[in-house]
Amino acid sequence: MTTAPLRIAIAGLGTVGAAVVGLLQRNTDTITARAGRPIDIVAVSARNRSLDRGVPLDGYAWCDDAPDMARDVDCDIVVELIGGSNGPALATVNAALQAGRDVVTANKALLAVHGAEIAALADAQSRTVAYEAAVAAAIPVIKAVREGLAANPIDGLRGILNGTCNFILTEMERTGRPFAEVLAEAQALGFAEADPTFDVDGIDAAHKLALLAALAFGAEPDFDGVITEGIRNISAEDMRIADNLGYRIKLLGIATLADDGLEQRVQPCLVRKDAAIANIEGSTNAVVVDGRYSDPVLLAGRGAGADPTASAVVADLIDIARDIRPPMFGVKAADLTRFERAPSDKHERAFYVRLQVLDRPGVFADLAATLRDHDVSMESVLQKSRAPGEPVSVILTMHEAPESAVRAAFDAVEALDAVIEPPAVLRIEPC
Amino acid sequence: MTTAPLRIAIAGLGTVGAAVVGLLQRNTDTITARAGRPIDIVAVSARNRSLDRGVPLDGYAWCDDAPDMARDVDCDIVVELIGGSNGPALATVNAALQAGRDVVTANKALLAVHGAEIAALADAQSRTVAYEAAVAAAIPVIKAVREGLAANPIDGLRGILNGTCNFILTEMERTGRPFAEVLAEAQALGFAEADPTFDVDGIDAAHKLALLAALAFGAEPDFDGVITEGIRNISAEDMRIADNLGYRIKLLGIATLADDGLEQRVQPCLVRKDAAIANIEGSTNAVVVDGRYSDPVLLAGRGAGADPTASAVVADLIDIARDIRPPMFGVKAADLTRFERAPSDKHERAFYVRLQVLDRPGVFADLAATLRDHDVSMESVLQKSRAPGEPVSVILTMHEAPESAVRAAFDAVEALDAVIEPPAVLRIEPC
Repeated sequence: MTTAPLRIAIAGLGTVGAAVVGLLQRNTDTITARAGRPIDIVAVSARNRSLDRGVPLDGYAWCDDAPDMARDVDCDIVVELIGGSNGPALATVNAALQAGRDVVTANKALLAVHGAEIAALADAQSRTVAYEAAVAAAIPVIKAVREGLAANPIDGLRGILNGTCNFILTEMERTGRPFAEVLAEAQALGFAEADPTFDVDGIDAAHKLALLAALAFGAEPDFDGVITEGIRNISAEDMRIADNLGYRIKLLGIATLADDGLEQRVQPCLVRKDAAIANIEGSTNAVVVDGRYSDPVLLAGRGAGADPTASAVVADLIDIARDIRPPMFGVKAADLTRFERAPSDKHERAFYVRLQVLDRPGVFADLAATLRDHDVSMESVLQKSRAPGEPVSVILTMHEAPESAVRAAFDAVEALDAVIEPPAVLRIEPC
Repeated sequence: MTTAPLRIAIAGLGTVGAAVVGLLQRNTDTITARAGRPIDIVAVSARNRSLDRGVPLDGYAWCDDAPDMARDVDCDIVVELIGGSNGPALATVNAALQAGRDVVTANKALLAVHGAEIAALADAQSRTVAYEAAVAAAIPVIKAVREGLAANPIDGLRGILNGTCNFILTEMERTGRPFAEVLAEAQALGFAEADPTFDVDGIDAAHKLALLAALAFGAEPDFDGVITEGIRNISAEDMRIADNLGYRIKLLGIATLADDGLEQRVQPCLVRKDAAIANIEGSTNAVVVDGRYSDPVLLAGRGAGADPTASAVVADLIDIARDIRPPMFGVKAADLTRFERAPSDKHERAFYVRLQVLDRPGVFADLAATLRDHDVSMESVLQKSRAPGEPVSVILTMHEAPESAVRAAFDAVEALDAVIEPPAVLRIEPC
């Protein structure tokens, strides 16, 4: 095996890019010993040359244009840390592969959307695209699924894939405060972005889920196939009631392969408090992988942040230095399957439902008749009393039934005169 | 990359060997797609040829002698599943490497004792020795430390590395029953061996800890350097009191590298109930790795059993089929360090102590004077009353102090007339 230095060019010098530079500078001896050869930065690229990024950059060639750097600078690996599912990130990755260079990237959006074509280009060029940092940062979950559990047919996986959402939900549970207030606090603390859409609407988690599902099932990443629901509508009352019922509410990404196709969902779920994943708190991420022979394997840790992400980026660099080059999504790009999207509203599952109703005679009779007409049945019902004359909360847990039937039933329930708010319908996930 | 079949010979057909054969037979298509080529069993070896192992073996050459097979059969990899730290297992691994073949093994005892010399032979022969199955079975913790966290200086790691002990401790906590009774039940259920010594005395956990420490710190495995204490002396009363104090008792393997050397300990510890590792129940294993940049990463899952172990063995085969060949202990064998053993009884830590004393005047004065004379101080003291005239339990938690001082203090306490049993002294681990 060669001991020549591995020459890398880094595109993007935001917090992660600067952390990668810093990690390589501070931890050189350990990395060289483990990689079996030096990893040398030869060039960097970013928009603003004058910004102080907290790490010395003098020794490296500076490139104003990342795709140009990927094409023209003499290097072995291009590290793409620009971000975004198109534009300069995509151009940089394509340019690097076309120039015969390997790619390391932390860009979940890019791979969730363009993963199949990038894998095909990498195979055609006999190059590697490594992306451990794209899912759950420091937690080596890509490696665990692609290599550690490679002997197993994977029956499914589920995870807490967005630390911002888990921080917000944990705080809502702990303090009883509403979503908007906790979000504002998370923004003040730097745990949530000024525009929190990608996080709280589940899009970031959906990107990661699409990559994990691709790996687990040998599939083309299908981000558009992820049914995605965020946490904006979770109320403090739902948190409190779930707690009383023995559950926590978590935003889960769940991927399952069944006879009728691939199901990918990101949605808030009730999970029993004694489940391992229910006990993942704050900004921690976790993934549980159901290998047929391994049984469930749990990985948990820091899923975001500059240093944890840099840890994963540099691990990928060390892999390539050691000539560790497994197939991008576990099998050759040509062998990736494009699965049908499972008609998951036909899948039977249990639900939690909270209704706001006017407390008057006949309400329960109407509700019961509507559910009967839609062939769905209650497991339990609980009425939370309030002041006389005020609307009351009615909490239902529903026996397993097709989601389509449950949704249709509660659309009809919503049309009842006494029901004064859209019902809150949340999945109960047995995990 | 070659697509020629990878030819393997399996030495040892116990439950794990049979599970490996079964997994390769049942899951051929998935494995071939992921490995990029077929993995073909060409020969097997075991002592008893006529035993029914539940899997067909007709297509494979049969060898009565494993080292002969490793030397003489034309194959790429020898899978060593014989077990034991010496004898035929060692002879088989050496013969395979000397014949220029790769080795996959699940043998923690062999590698904990002979790991450095085996790594040197593997490097000299440019061959790979893979051993994911040797630590925590299905949990890909070897891969996580060696590759996934390779960018990090590792500051320490700790784990629940023996499922039998964790099952027994969990049952003792859940039921309040004593060690001997729960051990007998575990034996009846097949969770503990007829001779439970390796498990309950911490030896099995110490083998695994020595391997994890070698990997984490780039060290020669130093099994003899592991300070090892089992769980036989944990009483039902200790479990109950720990619970009241907000702790659980877990058998932890802990490895730390400090300025004064490498510390490796397997011992029962009190851990706060809200620590992730305190919530690992039953026969589940877990490891927490403290990477400097990654922050703590937790892995948990099935740490024993035929199928989970086979999952790891076959993952190693797929790695080699993919030409994934990282250094055995993370760096070249020639670069492995032989660390000093840290004088860990000089390290300051907190302790829990339970005394049985006769309830008579002056006992506390004597106890307090003895502790003062040894320069160790109590954080809290609790007396559990019993029937009049009976001995009482006195529970102390001790402020952080060198273990040597605490042990010396309680040796002196034991010599007091009123103290009628050796004190139970357990470490409180802040994790």
